[in-house]
Amino acid sequence: MNPLRVVLIAPRNPLNIGAAARAISNFGFSELRLVNPYQVAFREAKSAVKAQHVLRDAREYAELAEAVADCALVVGTTSRGPRALEHPLRRLERGGRLINKKLATAPVALLFGSEKFGLSNDDLSHCHWLMRIPTREEHGSMNLGQAVAVCLYEIVRQPAAARSEVESKAPADAKSADAESLERLTLRLEEVLELSGYVHGEGGGSERLKMRRLIRRMKLDAHDAEVWLGMLRQIRWKLISSRE
Amino acid sequence: MNPLRVVLIAPRNPLNIGAAARAISNFGFSELRLVNPYQVAFREAKSAVKAQHVLRDAREYAELAEAVADCALVVGTTSRGPRALEHPLRRLERGGRLINKKLATAPVALLFGSEKFGLSNDDLSHCHWLMRIPTREEHGSMNLGQAVAVCLYEIVRQPAAARSEVESKAPADAKSADAESLERLTLRLEEVLELSGYVHGEGGGSERLKMRRLIRRMKLDAHDAEVWLGMLRQIRWKLISSRE
Repeated sequence: MNPLRVVLIAPRNPLNIGAAARAISNFGFSELRLVNPYQVAFREAKSAVKAQHVLRDAREYAELAEAVADCALVVGTTSRGPRALEHPLRRLERGGRLINKKLATAPVALLFGSEKFGLSNDDLSHCHWLMRIPTREEHGSMNLGQAVAVCLYEIVRQPAAARSEVESKAPADAKSADAESLERLTLRLEEVLELSGYVHGEGGGSERLKMRRLIRRMKLDAHDAEVWLGMLRQIRWKLISSRE
Repeated sequence: MNPLRVVLIAPRNPLNIGAAARAISNFGFSELRLVNPYQVAFREAKSAVKAQHVLRDAREYAELAEAVADCALVVGTTSRGPRALEHPLRRLERGGRLINKKLATAPVALLFGSEKFGLSNDDLSHCHWLMRIPTREEHGSMNLGQAVAVCLYEIVRQPAAARSEVESKAPADAKSADAESLERLTLRLEEVLELSGYVHGEGGGSERLKMRRLIRRMKLDAHDAEVWLGMLRQIRWKLISSRE
């Protein structure tokens, strides 16, 4: 069980509470804590369909101190940029890594302030440091549900996955077409282009070189090369038979 | 102007259209395109407050082919895991890097299917490859607005930022306390502990070593060391004066 506690302070919008719960569930976390939620909002969120188990198990607290009591690291989120703050401020890219590392040994609390006011100075005084999603400040703060989703994604994202090419290949592109079939394709295309009058035989071979390069640039796999060959065969047949 | 086009196909929920527009604005993009949106939803989203410019400039299309016509790369998003698909599937960590690279030279379209059905086979046939947010499949797909936010974050995130320590330091922790003030603090603490009866003078110096290590572990900055020194001075004064 991942010991990350997502703490919403005084949330007022049931859709945001629901969205936070859904992101917690989507990214494999489980614990939602609410400090002084607007009661109507909490009830409404609970009656929504998604992420039921997260909301059912969500705990309510009157004081932030109680909500983070079991956590070895408390991180506040803010939409304020790097300017005078009483706390060190880290970008999400860095903060996510540090939280991830700490979670291996101890519970961590990640705080989100209310939609309207963010975290108060009192809330901030409980934090070890603050974290900022790298948004354009002049465009306002993020929606609460989206901010939770983006932070949780950064915590679960796998840096190594940025270097691995594909997770699953399309079945047909498993095997590249071999040179023999590409050459057959080149000749067939050339023949069709001659039959159609697009090129004339007297080009002296330069057309063939162009076609050969064109076909190679298509990076065809074995299956698609066969499909193309079949199409060209049919076109060739039609061109020849219509000439008679 | 960043040439990323976020394309929503047949969105039905005005809150999702608004949330997508807000994420586009937050992360510094500008272009939203809608293919066959539910008209009531589009109108309602437009009347919401946030990210007005993105929604005002959003373009509507009847066909996906028109919506992506100017793009050199078309990427579909899916919540389906790595199983039989007609397209190569990449995790977001990798896909985001590739999209980011392509955006340096050409427009890219990023497609999101409708809330209920996702992308159809017809929609998928327009895609060069597919991208998946690494969520737990058994917990259902992500909310549309949150999925847009997470994808855009991955595209703008700066890998180098994961290694840089802090964006802005708290003003007070700019300068570490020097050894002289830490030693003054150690002596003052020792004195207060003796006055209070916590330790006795005959410890032979081992108490002082303990205190010295304790003070160093606090990693105090210059300002906080002065604050502690002031507090201990006051406590010492009170202990001495109450003895008389």
